[in-house]
Amino acid sequence: MKVLVTGGLGFIGSHTVVELQNEGFEVVIIDDLSNSSVDVLEGITAITGKEPVFEQIDLREKASVQEFFKKYADVSGVIHFAASKAVGESVENPLLYYENNLGTLVYLLQELQKKDKAHFIFSSSCTVYGQAEKMPITEDAPIQQAMSPYGNTKQIGEEIITDTAKVTNINAILLRYFNPVGSHESAEIGELPKGTPQNLVPFITQTAIGLREQLSVFGDDYPTADGTCIRDYIHVVDLAKAHVKALKRLIDNKNESNVETFNLGTGKGNSVLEVINTFEKVSGEKLNYKIAPRREGDITEAYADTTKANDVLGWKAELTIEDALASAWKWEKKVRGKE
Amino acid sequence: MKVLVTGGLGFIGSHTVVELQNEGFEVVIIDDLSNSSVDVLEGITAITGKEPVFEQIDLREKASVQEFFKKYADVSGVIHFAASKAVGESVENPLLYYENNLGTLVYLLQELQKKDKAHFIFSSSCTVYGQAEKMPITEDAPIQQAMSPYGNTKQIGEEIITDTAKVTNINAILLRYFNPVGSHESAEIGELPKGTPQNLVPFITQTAIGLREQLSVFGDDYPTADGTCIRDYIHVVDLAKAHVKALKRLIDNKNESNVETFNLGTGKGNSVLEVINTFEKVSGEKLNYKIAPRREGDITEAYADTTKANDVLGWKAELTIEDALASAWKWEKKVRGKE
Repeated sequence: MKVLVTGGLGFIGSHTVVELQNEGFEVVIIDDLSNSSVDVLEGITAITGKEPVFEQIDLREKASVQEFFKKYADVSGVIHFAASKAVGESVENPLLYYENNLGTLVYLLQELQKKDKAHFIFSSSCTVYGQAEKMPITEDAPIQQAMSPYGNTKQIGEEIITDTAKVTNINAILLRYFNPVGSHESAEIGELPKGTPQNLVPFITQTAIGLREQLSVFGDDYPTADGTCIRDYIHVVDLAKAHVKALKRLIDNKNESNVETFNLGTGKGNSVLEVINTFEKVSGEKLNYKIAPRREGDITEAYADTTKANDVLGWKAELTIEDALASAWKWEKKVRGKE
Repeated sequence: MKVLVTGGLGFIGSHTVVELQNEGFEVVIIDDLSNSSVDVLEGITAITGKEPVFEQIDLREKASVQEFFKKYADVSGVIHFAASKAVGESVENPLLYYENNLGTLVYLLQELQKKDKAHFIFSSSCTVYGQAEKMPITEDAPIQQAMSPYGNTKQIGEEIITDTAKVTNINAILLRYFNPVGSHESAEIGELPKGTPQNLVPFITQTAIGLREQLSVFGDDYPTADGTCIRDYIHVVDLAKAHVKALKRLIDNKNESNVETFNLGTGKGNSVLEVINTFEKVSGEKLNYKIAPRREGDITEAYADTTKANDVLGWKAELTIEDALASAWKWEKKVRGKE
């Protein structure tokens, strides 16, 4: 079966393409290369032995989306990663986010709703829960007022899909990611942010390799055991596998409603200092870090209740935070030629 | 000063163009004629003695929006009416609403944020309050989960504007309309829905004139005095005048924040049966109506606290429900050649 993966050259997208190809799916990638590199195709090919079809398309152009679905009339399954994802940038340029993240979604769904049956998997985020009252977070925790345009586009995206699935032949699964980290064990693909990393792990590995002078830990006065924020760090390879499970569920018509929602995390929380200490242990490197003031918009803690994904999707995170940090470090060293 | 009025040939848009021209503004109208007629230009010209500039543009086409602002580089004030507005249709075709109502908004704001200073007035709706707990409804009543994609686009529109105004030179006023009814006293312009009317008053006048056999009153078992729903019916000419006040407030730099929100209503609620009785009184016609089951999504009652608009905008509804229904009837008769 042929599957479209938008943003398929990005971090989570590329790892998902690998798992899809490993499971025998034919993959077509759309990517606009705005935050990724065409070289990722080589990495995917090196791992899987097969080069996926690639189309460089800007999904904000409705005509291009329409043309794509004319050319690939047999695509009825879409995993939609393509989106802008920097919280801070979204505050500074909200229209960029509303256009990139909502316009593209609408155009894709408009084409899919013309089909007799279509499957749609959406990259949502635990950000929709804001600071949840209860840990771990279940899927029925209340959605909170978004704290950034980025977060708002994830909430609105879920609403657009839900409204559409109700009245069309599109069946959808919304996957709420916690904090994806790590790289494929081969170090052929991995996370490669353009500019200053917005996330902890690439900042750690870039500091360890000497690209950044110092890592800032934003706040050590949170009401947690060591005072730093707690997140649920999920290995990107585990995350990628969940997408394959979700897609198969839709293809096999096992879904119980037009739209299903799953948290994807490990179920365990780790503090920033724990991540740093674990990184130092698995890498043997000493990290230069300092405690800095809290960063606006950061919540204290978030980790997933993964019972629903475990029971319904038959999926469970299998890799550890040690695995994730070791793989991220292996990737960083390879990228910088220090392997 | 030159003002762009999008949807300026529609019901509220055309009445606002009249009031703007009466106050000396130069108006450029954009309308795609999807739910209006180019003949409205004649009505506006008959009333004001001046034909506004008209551009037939589909605002969903980004390139067209960009071209417009190149051609009319001196437009820095926009009153944005253009939108799809049928609740039921939005449930059946949500993507149409998300594209029409959000895409167009994003493209307009993208052009305005390039300017040193820009004024933006947005057609929002009391639908954002859902069934409010307290009557009358003040602007700080909580926003409720939208009951339709239409309602959701109004909420999201407010969010997009608010996020954008925070970080740009755009100052915005969000106007939350209650139930606009009536027509200009000249009967040169008025409400002319395509297809079956979705709103009470045009359905009343079309029934009275013989276009519809019978009017359905949806539910007489609501917890109100006569059992029918209560709404705040605001004369469209009063509503139009509020837009001029809002625009002047922005031009005169009197706004106290980047985004201000005002309820626009009369402050009084009328039940469906009261509206019917009042119509029969002012028209001298007997209406054929029946009680039908409740309609899904209808709330019991909504009427505005207009204190903020009264005090801050210096605006107050001056026309009555009798005025509104008499003008709507005069318009209906004229349109059907029965004057």
